[in-house]
Amino acid sequence: MPEFSSKLLNAAVDAFAKLPGIGRKTALRLALYLLKQSQEEVERFGHAFISLRSEVKYCTECHTISDTDRCPICASPRRDHTIVCVVETVRDVLSIENTQQYNGVYHVLGGIISPMDGIGPHDLAIDSLVARVATGTVKEVVLALSTTMEGETTCFYLYKKLHNFPLSVTTIARGVGFGDELEYTDELTLGRSIKNRQPFTV
Amino acid sequence: MPEFSSKLLNAAVDAFAKLPGIGRKTALRLALYLLKQSQEEVERFGHAFISLRSEVKYCTECHTISDTDRCPICASPRRDHTIVCVVETVRDVLSIENTQQYNGVYHVLGGIISPMDGIGPHDLAIDSLVARVATGTVKEVVLALSTTMEGETTCFYLYKKLHNFPLSVTTIARGVGFGDELEYTDELTLGRSIKNRQPFTV
Repeated sequence: MPEFSSKLLNAAVDAFAKLPGIGRKTALRLALYLLKQSQEEVERFGHAFISLRSEVKYCTECHTISDTDRCPICASPRRDHTIVCVVETVRDVLSIENTQQYNGVYHVLGGIISPMDGIGPHDLAIDSLVARVATGTVKEVVLALSTTMEGETTCFYLYKKLHNFPLSVTTIARGVGFGDELEYTDELTLGRSIKNRQPFTV
Repeated sequence: MPEFSSKLLNAAVDAFAKLPGIGRKTALRLALYLLKQSQEEVERFGHAFISLRSEVKYCTECHTISDTDRCPICASPRRDHTIVCVVETVRDVLSIENTQQYNGVYHVLGGIISPMDGIGPHDLAIDSLVARVATGTVKEVVLALSTTMEGETTCFYLYKKLHNFPLSVTTIARGVGFGDELEYTDELTLGRSIKNRQPFTV
């Protein structure tokens, strides 16, 4: 699609088109949609992202996105702090919370071991997981990673790091088909698979 | 999907989810994507829309989006100013320009007559079209509106307003299937239909 007559419009379309899964045609539609909204509305829109990016905090315990130092889950006395569910991203925390099948706490790795993308164990929040476990309060670590090759590799790495501690290392039940991404799994399957979690075997 | 642990994240997801065609799951993905970008990048993103909305200008002649008082098309001596192509939105100007089959100028109505949506002739840039025609320089008005019921109604209304002037009123060739929206038409069909435009008949 060629350049538009307006540089401002071009800049807005470029901004939208940089987002994953948004092509230039959709980007143009969204930009023109915003043009029809009130000035105030568009400012609220733009600033929502700017403040998210500049003011965002991560829970010091589990590394999920939080407005406070400790996220509501880590701060809750109703949650079982002896079970820690290890996930790849913040999105996975939300997915598992949506199933309403899990009452423990979380640990967000911030990614997955993937040599192809240049992501090694030291790029992930693994040391802080080991530190949490070393306090002795954790009785179970649930590995809830995608059932891809990278997920399996990460599970294996974490198991090696954790199996000497007096706790059980489990994985979510393989109700999820091999090769599937966790985030695309429906709530029922995901809920069942976290309930039927099984001891991790090498 | 329930509320997230972070109000900032919530606000960003809400902002994205208000856009047409973006659900909350996609909105969350986009918000988390932005979180991974640099602060500077996200500020550029947010401000692209804010400045588009606050600084946008419309061409005084054809009402398309423009950075200048007269858009590059209206200001160009290479374009044929005796032919005016009437379209619904700015997007349609871009679509027709992409076909590279048209060398006249445009007139953006800013909508289409649609009693169901409460849009009447007075909400559209019809008076300014009549004023352009009344200067006597226009020899042909091409009606390039969607071939929907509303589009046909608008064509008929415009024809009644224009047919007493010494010019020909044409419509783009009906290569476009009845009931189709203009913006979804492929470039080939759209290009052919603007080339084979025909006299408007009641």
